[in-house]
Amino acid sequence: MKAIIGLDIGGTKVLGALYNEAGELLERGKKKTKANEGIDTVMGQVYKVIDGLLAFPEVEVTGIGVGVPGLVNQKGVVTFSPNIPFKDFDLADRIQKKYHLPVVVGNDVNVAMYGEFRHTESSYKNVLGLFIGTGIGGAIIIDEKLYIGQGSAAEFGHMVVNADGAYCGCGAQGCLEAHASKTAIQKAITTQLHKGRKSMLADLLKEDGAVIKSSSLKKAFDESDPLAVEVMLKAARFLGIAVGTLINQFHPEAIIFGGGVIEAMGESFVDLVAREASQHAMPGLMETVDLKCATLGDDAGIFGAYQLAKATI
Amino acid sequence: MKAIIGLDIGGTKVLGALYNEAGELLERGKKKTKANEGIDTVMGQVYKVIDGLLAFPEVEVTGIGVGVPGLVNQKGVVTFSPNIPFKDFDLADRIQKKYHLPVVVGNDVNVAMYGEFRHTESSYKNVLGLFIGTGIGGAIIIDEKLYIGQGSAAEFGHMVVNADGAYCGCGAQGCLEAHASKTAIQKAITTQLHKGRKSMLADLLKEDGAVIKSSSLKKAFDESDPLAVEVMLKAARFLGIAVGTLINQFHPEAIIFGGGVIEAMGESFVDLVAREASQHAMPGLMETVDLKCATLGDDAGIFGAYQLAKATI
Repeated sequence: MKAIIGLDIGGTKVLGALYNEAGELLERGKKKTKANEGIDTVMGQVYKVIDGLLAFPEVEVTGIGVGVPGLVNQKGVVTFSPNIPFKDFDLADRIQKKYHLPVVVGNDVNVAMYGEFRHTESSYKNVLGLFIGTGIGGAIIIDEKLYIGQGSAAEFGHMVVNADGAYCGCGAQGCLEAHASKTAIQKAITTQLHKGRKSMLADLLKEDGAVIKSSSLKKAFDESDPLAVEVMLKAARFLGIAVGTLINQFHPEAIIFGGGVIEAMGESFVDLVAREASQHAMPGLMETVDLKCATLGDDAGIFGAYQLAKATI
Repeated sequence: MKAIIGLDIGGTKVLGALYNEAGELLERGKKKTKANEGIDTVMGQVYKVIDGLLAFPEVEVTGIGVGVPGLVNQKGVVTFSPNIPFKDFDLADRIQKKYHLPVVVGNDVNVAMYGEFRHTESSYKNVLGLFIGTGIGGAIIIDEKLYIGQGSAAEFGHMVVNADGAYCGCGAQGCLEAHASKTAIQKAITTQLHKGRKSMLADLLKEDGAVIKSSSLKKAFDESDPLAVEVMLKAARFLGIAVGTLINQFHPEAIIFGGGVIEAMGESFVDLVAREASQHAMPGLMETVDLKCATLGDDAGIFGAYQLAKATI
């Protein structure tokens, strides 16, 4: 039986899975990334996950797909990663030479959203993914294929939506990520709490530690905590502006929403985003685009990596 | 000898041309659109241009490509046109049934920028067009093909770049078109003149009539008229923000700039736009994208329509 390995190399853990040709998951693997121990240790962890999956009986592995955080060029070189010590590192080549198997590497969000696209039972050809977590990323699927341009396409977190707005970690002003990512939401909350504003988020933040959990945002929002409502509506507004822009630019059949903020906040939050988007999409376009929530959770990365390998190799 | 007809149906004139397989222009045609005389008169004018080109000796016409202002769906139906009385009008089918030839119809800016792309001697695969005239439009070329999504893609004039900025003719707030089109530039100028501001643009505007010519903007800008410089730098800033965003989204090999404002202002204006864009493109991306000026002028529409027919039929 032929099979393909899907890998999701994250900042804290390396996830892997073995899929057969029908897309059924045969086996899983998981190791700590140990990102702070250097590149050789990280690769050792990756190899352990691969070796574990290769030991699965009676399958012939025909390829490996990999998702990794950071900028990945068309050849599978990781030019930069924010939380793994890969810098101009030819990840595809390294794995390929060790296992003598075809390898395809993509950006983690691109790959995960491609997995969500493949998981959608539909005849969609042109779909966008919008991922709202600590940062904001995305994916462009055109004619059923992942589009990456020269490598770094779909950086939707760095669409400028508010020219005179907040500065972003990337150095630019007005990026979507600076207005609607979990990082931006957290910053707005802590600023208000420091000002002495009362909110149940103060207690939730103490429980969560340094970074507020998306589930805490959801809880406070559902209980109509004024600060939580204010901050989340503001985030929804900027997300809606971005979604309206994306519709005017791509006129896709669907946009799939994923990431921790969406997973916690749920469909009602996407409805708020859609309401804002409809004010910015050109007349007649909004109703032609389906807005959907991602459904695969943590499996999106491994499933997308498998699908990408299947489509590419 | 085989040949293809390219048509550019504009608000005031219908341009046509006959091209052979090598892309050489064999014959031109031109009629007034007579848009205010209704749909049958307009189609009569279109047919006159086609008939004239079909009369060219010793060629076999194998298809017709058409560019038309407005929203055109994937089947060649013009759902709406701002200045021609086409409304849910199956233009492709109408021409096809009369001449028994394959017909492809696209949005005028999409088609013209596709013509500019095809005219570029290069190995580019993924290119964007940005057209700055009375309004702002664009084109997306992916894998050497014109991408239109469900029909209305590449409406770059309606990217929201300034959430709390000016209202746009489309009804939304903060669109690029409301900040950097010739209409927006003109509005900024007349507002300032009404306030009593001194500028050589006052005299130029009197000469030009109700709408200022792009050449007048260029003249005043080159002579360092303070109002002209202020207004054009502001337009360049918003164009640069949009270009930075487009680079982060598409990571294309090139962006081609066209339209009356660009034709008049020239490459030095595109340099100003690029300077702003480099502040918004993600680190390392700006230098990977070529910024180019369109070169075909009024022929872009007919040449693009020919190229589109050639690629599609």
